[in-house]
Amino acid sequence: MKRIPVGILGATGAVGQKFVRLLEHHPQFFCAELVASERSSGKRYTDACNWIEDTDIPEQVRSMTVKGVDEPLESPLLFSGLDSSVARDFERTYAEKGHIVISNASSHRMESDVPLLIPEVNIDHLRLIEKQTTPGKIITNSNCVTMFLALVCAPIHRELEITSIYVSSMQAVSGAGFPGVASLSILDNVIPYIKNEEEKLETEPRRILGTLKEDRVVPASFPISAQCNRIPVINGHVMTLNISVKNSVPVEDLSTLLSEFSGYPQKQKLFSAPTSPVIVHKDPFSPQIRKCISHSMSASVGRIRSCSNVDYKMVVAGHNTVRGAAGAALLNAEAYLAKGYTL
Amino acid sequence: MKRIPVGILGATGAVGQKFVRLLEHHPQFFCAELVASERSSGKRYTDACNWIEDTDIPEQVRSMTVKGVDEPLESPLLFSGLDSSVARDFERTYAEKGHIVISNASSHRMESDVPLLIPEVNIDHLRLIEKQTTPGKIITNSNCVTMFLALVCAPIHRELEITSIYVSSMQAVSGAGFPGVASLSILDNVIPYIKNEEEKLETEPRRILGTLKEDRVVPASFPISAQCNRIPVINGHVMTLNISVKNSVPVEDLSTLLSEFSGYPQKQKLFSAPTSPVIVHKDPFSPQIRKCISHSMSASVGRIRSCSNVDYKMVVAGHNTVRGAAGAALLNAEAYLAKGYTL
Amino acid sequence: MKRIPVGILGATGAVGQKFVRLLEHHPQFFCAELVASERSSGKRYTDACNWIEDTDIPEQVRSMTVKGVDEPLESPLLFSGLDSSVARDFERTYAEKGHIVISNASSHRMESDVPLLIPEVNIDHLRLIEKQTTPGKIITNSNCVTMFLALVCAPIHRELEITSIYVSSMQAVSGAGFPGVASLSILDNVIPYIKNEEEKLETEPRRILGTLKEDRVVPASFPISAQCNRIPVINGHVMTLNISVKNSVPVEDLSTLLSEFSGYPQKQKLFSAPTSPVIVHKDPFSPQIRKCISHSMSASVGRIRSCSNVDYKMVVAGHNTVRGAAGAALLNAEAYLAKGYTL
Amino acid sequence: MKRIPVGILGATGAVGQKFVRLLEHHPQFFCAELVASERSSGKRYTDACNWIEDTDIPEQVRSMTVKGVDEPLESPLLFSGLDSSVARDFERTYAEKGHIVISNASSHRMESDVPLLIPEVNIDHLRLIEKQTTPGKIITNSNCVTMFLALVCAPIHRELEITSIYVSSMQAVSGAGFPGVASLSILDNVIPYIKNEEEKLETEPRRILGTLKEDRVVPASFPISAQCNRIPVINGHVMTLNISVKNSVPVEDLSTLLSEFSGYPQKQKLFSAPTSPVIVHKDPFSPQIRKCISHSMSASVGRIRSCSNVDYKMVVAGHNTVRGAAGAALLNAEAYLAKGYTL
Repeated sequence: MKRIPVGILGATGAVGQKFVRLLEHHPQFFCAELVASERSSGKRYTDACNWIEDTDIPEQVRSMTVKGVDEPLESPLLFSGLDSSVARDFERTYAEKGHIVISNASSHRMESDVPLLIPEVNIDHLRLIEKQTTPGKIITNSNCVTMFLALVCAPIHRELEITSIYVSSMQAVSGAGFPGVASLSILDNVIPYIKNEEEKLETEPRRILGTLKEDRVVPASFPISAQCNRIPVINGHVMTLNISVKNSVPVEDLSTLLSEFSGYPQKQKLFSAPTSPVIVHKDPFSPQIRKCISHSMSASVGRIRSCSNVDYKMVVAGHNTVRGAAGAALLNAEAYLAKGYTL
Repeated sequence: MKRIPVGILGATGAVGQKFVRLLEHHPQFFCAELVASERSSGKRYTDACNWIEDTDIPEQVRSMTVKGVDEPLESPLLFSGLDSSVARDFERTYAEKGHIVISNASSHRMESDVPLLIPEVNIDHLRLIEKQTTPGKIITNSNCVTMFLALVCAPIHRELEITSIYVSSMQAVSGAGFPGVASLSILDNVIPYIKNEEEKLETEPRRILGTLKEDRVVPASFPISAQCNRIPVINGHVMTLNISVKNSVPVEDLSTLLSEFSGYPQKQKLFSAPTSPVIVHKDPFSPQIRKCISHSMSASVGRIRSCSNVDYKMVVAGHNTVRGAAGAALLNAEAYLAKGYTL
Repeated sequence: MKRIPVGILGATGAVGQKFVRLLEHHPQFFCAELVASERSSGKRYTDACNWIEDTDIPEQVRSMTVKGVDEPLESPLLFSGLDSSVARDFERTYAEKGHIVISNASSHRMESDVPLLIPEVNIDHLRLIEKQTTPGKIITNSNCVTMFLALVCAPIHRELEITSIYVSSMQAVSGAGFPGVASLSILDNVIPYIKNEEEKLETEPRRILGTLKEDRVVPASFPISAQCNRIPVINGHVMTLNISVKNSVPVEDLSTLLSEFSGYPQKQKLFSAPTSPVIVHKDPFSPQIRKCISHSMSASVGRIRSCSNVDYKMVVAGHNTVRGAAGAALLNAEAYLAKGYTL
Repeated sequence: MKRIPVGILGATGAVGQKFVRLLEHHPQFFCAELVASERSSGKRYTDACNWIEDTDIPEQVRSMTVKGVDEPLESPLLFSGLDSSVARDFERTYAEKGHIVISNASSHRMESDVPLLIPEVNIDHLRLIEKQTTPGKIITNSNCVTMFLALVCAPIHRELEITSIYVSSMQAVSGAGFPGVASLSILDNVIPYIKNEEEKLETEPRRILGTLKEDRVVPASFPISAQCNRIPVINGHVMTLNISVKNSVPVEDLSTLLSEFSGYPQKQKLFSAPTSPVIVHKDPFSPQIRKCISHSMSASVGRIRSCSNVDYKMVVAGHNTVRGAAGAALLNAEAYLAKGYTL
């Protein structure tokens, strides 16, 4: 099978680099165009980019010349790691020119005709793109920490109907991109505030777990109360959850429900799909990000137990720049093609 | 005024060292006896002790000979930093011999005739000691993370009547003592479990905020749901809270209620009493442990805001080995004396 | 080809776990016996072991029963991750019983008939085993930080004749095993002392780079001045070197000499052999352990430049528990077999 | 005594903030003017400044309005924490306008008529200012890591005559200012390169330890070979030294020489002067930055021992933003006044 040429928007940034890395051995896609801001365009990728991944820059892209955001692109499929401050307009423009834009930015996530897609959870939302009037389309994935909340809550909400969620997060510095958080700010510290993060975490999951009615997403009705904190770890977001449901089941059954959760990517055996979207840990000391998230596309959940106030409490962890960002976008592109949409 | 000779039980441990440090310039007490396990007894303190404080060992105790737990002590007042595994029996024995034991251990906290004392919050509980039948008495302070929850919730409960609490904590490694948490376990990691910690955090605050009826504490009735995590910071516990109350007031009023909170130690101007037991931060990036807890006896609270699920949410931080341990015990001893009890 | 059953001594420790992990997909060996102290013997590996690797325990060993050090073993080949305090006697005993012991412990390294082997550097030293009078044999690899010094200095010494070395190291906490260094000791700190480490680093490289004369190793004569420090990183030892040589060449030539260095494992294409034992970095910000050592069997060297005092200075980094420990032992076993020795 | 009004150049930066903090309780100086770039000028200090110190902003400066670098200043004495990129011109201009500029920037350090002053070491160099033709004067302190090398080497050079130095440093992130080093770059990592740092460390100590001949500094002649590394600690620079001398003495005598070292600030009992400029540690695990540098104005030295290659090796540590920056400048100003120079 011939691999599809793809472009990466924001290719020199932290998410862009993760796209480059994850695409290196991808069976369907190959990195054909690297796009970045004016400051980088015209340079060799290896010169334009302050590479922060812990593997070498893939041979194939090393000497590729970075294109500017204003240059025409040939790749039908674009992965966007653009900063939200510029993503709105650029992504729209690329869609107008006929590209399929698989975006990790927050700009278009809440628009009524843009799928906020997690293929295991709401693959049916993908058909929102049919309402988009541009020749190309925009498909988005969720905020990094939202991803893990949504993956864990999806089977719970489907079977037990969630009525409220409390979430308190501990988030890695890589979530802020590069240079992101100053070491002088975060070493030996906790920063109890991440701009706009709680708003995303309180609204995105409800759209993701919402139901499609007459081609509109009716958001799930349960409220989410979020508190987001930055802690001195490199990769991996962790959160504690308290969840109340309408139809409570014993903790053991909830645990089974989560470990047996599976969706479209698993059925279709998509390349980036994890075997299990949710991995359940029984050891009380798990999940630990250092041990469980290594380039994983799963959410890890542990310490599932009864709560004195609501029905359940538990801990969830995941890799914020893999499943929480670039990996999520790759899976979305794979699902788009598997569903028979064309480029 | 002549300073009172005091003994430190568990003097070579992490809490014991903090006692030694905090006593160095104390106007009422001086360190007269250092007590530790067999392994250390008979040695000079400076040889017995793997000193971990960031100041020098106070001159006065350097060459003091460490006594064993089985040796008779002369100091009427003892501060106990004993490990809970041995504290129960030793502290009881010292009380039987007539010593006033101010304990940081968890062993006796929930006994009906032992005050679990935070002088700002429940100074009236102190009179439980009158029910103790031993010649000496035992007075305890709370678990480290409980302290900050209790300080913040005390004025809220008194004025608004708390009906439920959700707490998710991020706790420093110093809370586990020395050697405590292996660096290989916690660097770049979160450990989502601390043995027995959630149990303490779910029960101790209710006793502390309970009411004295016929010389028994009737615990506060609100349930607490706790999730405790260890993170890679040295000192300082941080927690996010969600609180529901019976009589809600606007956020601004809650904020005022907290910043104006004051109690017995403030009125009596006790030496270890902070000016304000609760410091309210307005900047959304506060409180940060690196900036706000420096040997402080206060709880710092910030990000007080409405919650979509219950009434309020907020972040609380404090110094776990100062106000959360040794400093709390010192304040308890000062309150004991201020109340007119004798040694 | 049938895989050879091997035993791991000290299987529950940090090095033992790395052996288990590296053997999972090894084409020549498979983990047949796990041996540990009395405390662990009789238990399932998964219960006996506080697994600290960031991958799952390999399926194959999960439910294997751990054997005691006093039980007879069937595997002809044993990898020893025993603590040096017990390695001397146990390893000797196993050799007496006919096992080939590939040891990572320091106990036997300096014995006249035991090869202190780095196959790229001194494969000829392997024949020292022929002087061992036991039915089995003992082969050792070097101390972790010594490994990277020796790999880099080998080609320099061979071509230019080293006359003195200054080395200052920054070593990861994993080098101290588990639990090893307390987090309370090392977070936000440098510990400027590692017991016995400087002695090893000042003597082992001279033996490794020594010449075989009449079946004895005559150590290289240059002196090494070592200063070893522990820093708060998880994996990866870094060191700065100053090197004086007899026959100086331009820096560029030295750089070429290092990058072209290759030895027996490369020629024989041994499974654990890196393509290049020494990788030369040109970017002044390299080598960085976070980026270059990922489970690598190479030493990384960078910032090669002239020194105002002696000939050269440079920075060297490597993975202390892979090439610096378990991986080194695996390569030694592969070299042993490639050389035609039997089990 | 009336306190002298001083201005702080670069008042919102990391060094500027340290000036503000150290001046809070200074008996001779008080902070009268805060100067920063255009971006900050006109704002209240508390709004202009991202305060990173771990104490509160001193009450006195909170609502002070920040002045621009082009505004005329009234304070006769200015402390400069300006970035080197702009310090050259601005400091010169202020000196032309008659201000005494006590600078922490590197711009003017190597100019023939500017003292690179460490009052314990080269107080006689101060008279170089008499050669400056401007109405005001410029006095500089050394680079942060240079300071600790110079303090330790001064008594050695004076008594034993140093003939060469090897230094390998481990430097805290605060040395790079704010925002400085990205957390994503340095967490769990070592960066083996700090731009321009080795050049400073190889030249500044020679000027500092140089001798004044006919109003010119003749630099000390020994060569210094420096290798500088950034490690993940907040405050505190550590370095290993190898030193060769002309007139060797036993290690014990060297140790005494260092601990008895004292200079002009000690004699004059200047406010910022430490009791001992060099503190000698005997415990091999010392000096540790977490334990010994707490806002200290001393260099800490430990592990003094013989070296196989040259005469001595040892470890040195110090607080890079206190003695290595703002504190050094304060001491220089105090020495300037003590020497009878006027404002």
